[in-house]
Amino acid sequence: MPDTDPKLTHIDAAGAAHMVDVSEKDVTSRIAVAEGSVTMRPETLELIVSGNAKKGDVIATARIAGIMAAKKTHELIPLCHPLALSKVTIDIEPDADLPGLRVKATTKVSGQTGVEMEALTACSVCCLTIYDMAKAVDRGMVIGDIRLLEKAGGKSGHWTSADGGTGGT
Amino acid sequence: MPDTDPKLTHIDAAGAAHMVDVSEKDVTSRIAVAEGSVTMRPETLELIVSGNAKKGDVIATARIAGIMAAKKTHELIPLCHPLALSKVTIDIEPDADLPGLRVKATTKVSGQTGVEMEALTACSVCCLTIYDMAKAVDRGMVIGDIRLLEKAGGKSGHWTSADGGTGGT
Amino acid sequence: MPDTDPKLTHIDAAGAAHMVDVSEKDVTSRIAVAEGSVTMRPETLELIVSGNAKKGDVIATARIAGIMAAKKTHELIPLCHPLALSKVTIDIEPDADLPGLRVKATTKVSGQTGVEMEALTACSVCCLTIYDMAKAVDRGMVIGDIRLLEKAGGKSGHWTSADGGTGGT
Amino acid sequence: MPDTDPKLTHIDAAGAAHMVDVSEKDVTSRIAVAEGSVTMRPETLELIVSGNAKKGDVIATARIAGIMAAKKTHELIPLCHPLALSKVTIDIEPDADLPGLRVKATTKVSGQTGVEMEALTACSVCCLTIYDMAKAVDRGMVIGDIRLLEKAGGKSGHWTSADGGTGGT
Amino acid sequence: MPDTDPKLTHIDAAGAAHMVDVSEKDVTSRIAVAEGSVTMRPETLELIVSGNAKKGDVIATARIAGIMAAKKTHELIPLCHPLALSKVTIDIEPDADLPGLRVKATTKVSGQTGVEMEALTACSVCCLTIYDMAKAVDRGMVIGDIRLLEKAGGKSGHWTSADGGTGGT
Amino acid sequence: MPDTDPKLTHIDAAGAAHMVDVSEKDVTSRIAVAEGSVTMRPETLELIVSGNAKKGDVIATARIAGIMAAKKTHELIPLCHPLALSKVTIDIEPDADLPGLRVKATTKVSGQTGVEMEALTACSVCCLTIYDMAKAVDRGMVIGDIRLLEKAGGKSGHWTSADGGTGGT
Repeated sequence: MPDTDPKLTHIDAAGAAHMVDVSEKDVTSRIAVAEGSVTMRPETLELIVSGNAKKGDVIATARIAGIMAAKKTHELIPLCHPLALSKVTIDIEPDADLPGLRVKATTKVSGQTGVEMEALTACSVCCLTIYDMAKAVDRGMVIGDIRLLEKAGGKSGHWTSADGGTGGT
Repeated sequence: MPDTDPKLTHIDAAGAAHMVDVSEKDVTSRIAVAEGSVTMRPETLELIVSGNAKKGDVIATARIAGIMAAKKTHELIPLCHPLALSKVTIDIEPDADLPGLRVKATTKVSGQTGVEMEALTACSVCCLTIYDMAKAVDRGMVIGDIRLLEKAGGKSGHWTSADGGTGGT
Repeated sequence: MPDTDPKLTHIDAAGAAHMVDVSEKDVTSRIAVAEGSVTMRPETLELIVSGNAKKGDVIATARIAGIMAAKKTHELIPLCHPLALSKVTIDIEPDADLPGLRVKATTKVSGQTGVEMEALTACSVCCLTIYDMAKAVDRGMVIGDIRLLEKAGGKSGHWTSADGGTGGT
Repeated sequence: MPDTDPKLTHIDAAGAAHMVDVSEKDVTSRIAVAEGSVTMRPETLELIVSGNAKKGDVIATARIAGIMAAKKTHELIPLCHPLALSKVTIDIEPDADLPGLRVKATTKVSGQTGVEMEALTACSVCCLTIYDMAKAVDRGMVIGDIRLLEKAGGKSGHWTSADGGTGGT
Repeated sequence: MPDTDPKLTHIDAAGAAHMVDVSEKDVTSRIAVAEGSVTMRPETLELIVSGNAKKGDVIATARIAGIMAAKKTHELIPLCHPLALSKVTIDIEPDADLPGLRVKATTKVSGQTGVEMEALTACSVCCLTIYDMAKAVDRGMVIGDIRLLEKAGGKSGHWTSADGGTGGT
Repeated sequence: MPDTDPKLTHIDAAGAAHMVDVSEKDVTSRIAVAEGSVTMRPETLELIVSGNAKKGDVIATARIAGIMAAKKTHELIPLCHPLALSKVTIDIEPDADLPGLRVKATTKVSGQTGVEMEALTACSVCCLTIYDMAKAVDRGMVIGDIRLLEKAGGKSGHWTSADGGTGGT
């Protein structure tokens, strides 16, 4: 009955943080999809997406930053295992209703531990890079809704955000 | 009239990304404060904060991750200048109304460019670490409301989030 | 007769350093345990361990630093192979007889090369972090006795420090 | 009377770790000297230092590793400030009495905070690299006596290890 | 008469590598410009530059890689001093005569040591990234002509490649 | 008919850069050999190679820099997959005809993707380090001829530079 006695797996019985032993877990194909957003003024969004090819570097830079950050996840998150990512993709789409940009990251590995943190880290750094590139015109932008959308592989199997949310948002 | 012709400073006239020249800017004392939050189930929050000193490592780990990430900002955000941070502090507080944890990061430097990205990056990675440590019991947590609260120093002077928000949130 | 003609494996016949080829070695489960210590004034030890939960961050910070350093071993030690650590744990215990703190690190991997350097690096950086956090009150602390206690897995099999020491210490 | 109420400066009143504010400290020329040793079997030492120029890479590799590690100190030690080192030198000398190798590192900066951790980190990683290169022939080597020998610059002024040791060693 | 007794400054009198002491050098504005090229088949060049805005990411990715590499120079080149770059720009232009792409990097700092290595490293990594992105269609590409074009600032003053070349190229 | 419709594999149909999915590729033994050169004045070459063992550190430092850079390839080249290199060797030879130094790097892995970029990156950083160490006496040195000599393993099989060059060099 795991639900009745949930545990913080990264903390041992004595309360000490550790990098948990995954050596007995199966090597399976694992995938994760995460999303995030940067909410901004309409005119900031216009400045980023409108016009011409010249603005290409804004989106391209944020995408590259997200991909590179996925590879740095285990350096940033203290108890994450290093792993050999086999795929990282990032989609960045404007959303006039926000208004702002929506980011989606997909990560994949064949390994003993999941790639959720890699997808979430990719989204976060992609959003931070968008903030950095537009902050001269809009310091009040807000990064939000960074969440896991889906994961597959490993003992816990398939999960989507529809399966269980939080009390918040 | 800067407002009538705002520019994405990291993109040059030809649309190419570059690391802008700050060598002519004054060396001044600069400070930034940013915040963020992790929304979770009430029982997840209870698991993290209740009980005893043994849980100390959860908060301590997230705080350390945030501080170390602030120092990595220029490695993560492609066009950020490297700078010699003189101070980084992180506060993590439970908020039963979220329910979840609220994170606040303060960064400081004496330099030619601001430390907003360092504060925002510290918040983001601190939140990601909280997610990582509690994800075994609550995959639906949401990281959000990552925003700049205040900045001081430099040509643009003092700014607080009350001075100008976004159309969103 | 390898014992009668020991070789520095990281140096080739011409004396040049190289990262040795491990591609023909078996993938086995490998584990290593290393230890180290920080000797300090009794009152420094008292300051770190006594009192209340508030001091939790000293030990927690050193532990996290050690775990993160294990993951950086191949970046620090020039001829170490990068590897996907499956487990890192660090124990930090006060020892009134030193007086000071004793550190023990355990690392594990399923791979073609051992994890001794990862355990030793984790111990070293953990000790350095303890020094850093207490140096304002005790600059004369000494880090020492960093040694391998045990290793298992790989062609050379099981080894413990009891099997063979040095002429020193 | 600071001596009567020593404080762990990296821990705030609430027990939380933080990177202390050094922005009000003077920019002065700061220097630090640290030492360390690797104790080994006499025949291991002989293998490293005897013979011919071909062995040059062993010492050279350890020296380079130490210098590069000094530059990574703030990435390894969570609460260390990043700083622009102006000099790093490493001396490695055989000592038949150990028997083994003695390492000495000197670091220098013009800045608001000291370079003791940089010198100690350089020594530690230099010793770890020596261990790595000779471990195939002598797993029982011990790294020890890593200590600060001298520091100068900053408010606390000049200090040498003769000014105050520990109850240990 | 420095020319009559040239010295490898990074090697001391005993032949040991060290990071030279720059603490006595003046803080001046320093700039460096370096170039490099990737020679490829005409149809490879066509594939990269022709067509439409969709190809924007090839050039953008290489540019970002070069800028980020400039910030990593001191981590890559063992005896380089860490420094707070104030500007990095990269220009990438097609050259049908090569045929291929020409890369130019400009770096700037206010400091005690030059930024030549940063400009050269930016060029090299930018070229490597171009190779990586096109290697699936043209493995025989050649990276070449990586050289310093100009430097200014510091005791040695202004220098351009016209002032003195090599016996080669 | 891949040759009639070559594609830049790192760019998707919409022109966006991504880290391609290699999870379906076979794990095979992969090897790559790359070369590069630093052309310099004859007297610079003489200074580096002549004389005595004291100069050993120049070559040793460059070799170590190249090996360490191979391990950093995925951090430098945005779309490269992280991988567990099983071998890296670097040969540096003087060539009086250049005049200068020729560098050759060999990398090996058992994995799902090739190690060409690792070999090319090792060569590039090795050459940059040679430049750094000799630049005080010869700023006009030129790094060139960085190219892949051979690769083996993976679906595309064995390839040597003789199989297909570029229109250039």
